Amino acid sequence: MTITITAFERSPDRGRGLARDMRVRWALEEVGKAYDVHLVSFAEMKEPTHRALNPFGQIPTYQEGDLTLFESGSIVFHIAERHKGLLPDDADARARAITWMFAALNTVEPPIFDRSLVNILERDQPWFEHRLRTLDDSIRKRLSDLSVALGEADWLDGAFSAADILMVTVLRRLQGSGILEEFPNIAAYVARGETRPAYKRAFDAQLAVFTGNPATGS
Amino acid sequence: MTITITAFERSPDRGRGLARDMRVRWALEEVGKAYDVHLVSFAEMKEPTHRALNPFGQIPTYQEGDLTLFESGSIVFHIAERHKGLLPDDADARARAITWMFAALNTVEPPIFDRSLVNILERDQPWFEHRLRTLDDSIRKRLSDLSVALGEADWLDGAFSAADILMVTVLRRLQGSGILEEFPNIAAYVARGETRPAYKRAFDAQLAVFTGNPATGS
Repeated sequence: MTITITAFERSPDRGRGLARDMRVRWALEEVGKAYDVHLVSFAEMKEPTHRALNPFGQIPTYQEGDLTLFESGSIVFHIAERHKGLLPDDADARARAITWMFAALNTVEPPIFDRSLVNILERDQPWFEHRLRTLDDSIRKRLSDLSVALGEADWLDGAFSAADILMVTVLRRLQGSGILEEFPNIAAYVARGETRPAYKRAFDAQLAVFTGNPATGS
Repeated sequence: MTITITAFERSPDRGRGLARDMRVRWALEEVGKAYDVHLVSFAEMKEPTHRALNPFGQIPTYQEGDLTLFESGSIVFHIAERHKGLLPDDADARARAITWMFAALNTVEPPIFDRSLVNILERDQPWFEHRLRTLDDSIRKRLSDLSVALGEADWLDGAFSAADILMVTVLRRLQGSGILEEFPNIAAYVARGETRPAYKRAFDAQLAVFTGNPATGS
């Protein structure tokens, strides 16, 4: 069955892989599944046709036959459940990998995503510097804990998993902030993710949308 | 095997069911699993003993034999996978329920949780009013979309599921803000969750911790 995902027609990051379709593309590339991409404008995302796929009017969405999903975390998990290679076979190891998926999205991502929003929306406000410093402190706390948990390991918990796809894409949003570099093992972890062939194929495909040469995946 | 969760020794909400162990207690009560509760102080949460359970030094955690999990979303999912009644049997319906779990935690919870933090931590900041208004606008947008998606249904997608446990507990944090009442079907949905016997048992157990009469679950 054909898989179709949605992505920004004009991504705010100009195709640097920060939009959340990147996670889904990467997961699909890791398991070797071809996919189609339907591009939507910001206006179209808020229309009934797109809201029928995602009631919150966001990207990405995922369609496969009669099944429609939204939320990048849920879509990556769905791909990981249906295909080998993104979740451990052992039941306990699988549960731990899922714990890290939720940790990436619910504990690490919120202050990092806020930081991006503040940089865009509150730059001219008198409190901008103070807000940014407060967020940076929260982010450093999370990253300090994550750095200890990761230690010298290549991936979050044993073999590469769907949790690493989510965590690496969450952390990439800090590139350029200087914060990643304060935690060398985390910076190396992100770089390790970026060198995976599946990551590169996904990145190139979403960049091609922006540069005017749309690709449709593997 | 005995299940042990961790919870606040002194919950900041004074036992009104807003701490994240409530979700886990509720899920365990729905599937009829007994559990022990280990209470931790704010100081203990940051100590190595607790960080061995959760590297980010937060509650709740979940221990069952050799398995240790953290992140309330992951723990609720684990309980739902291992026991009947919290996820549909049909594969597509199950995937949709999981999508709503992620939507509760990643799309609906962030601005609502921020609102609580801002009310506690930023009340004296020059940006307080502006921040609160901005967050309330974000929350209203999410709830407006959620209200349309929910319509006249009792639960998010068919039968009651783990997604409803997460969404109801996320939304309860808005009680007292006046925002829930602007969306009568959402207010009724939250009230519907609160009338479930399993919810009440979980609520009473976590309240008893605060009132000085600790219960250990069902």
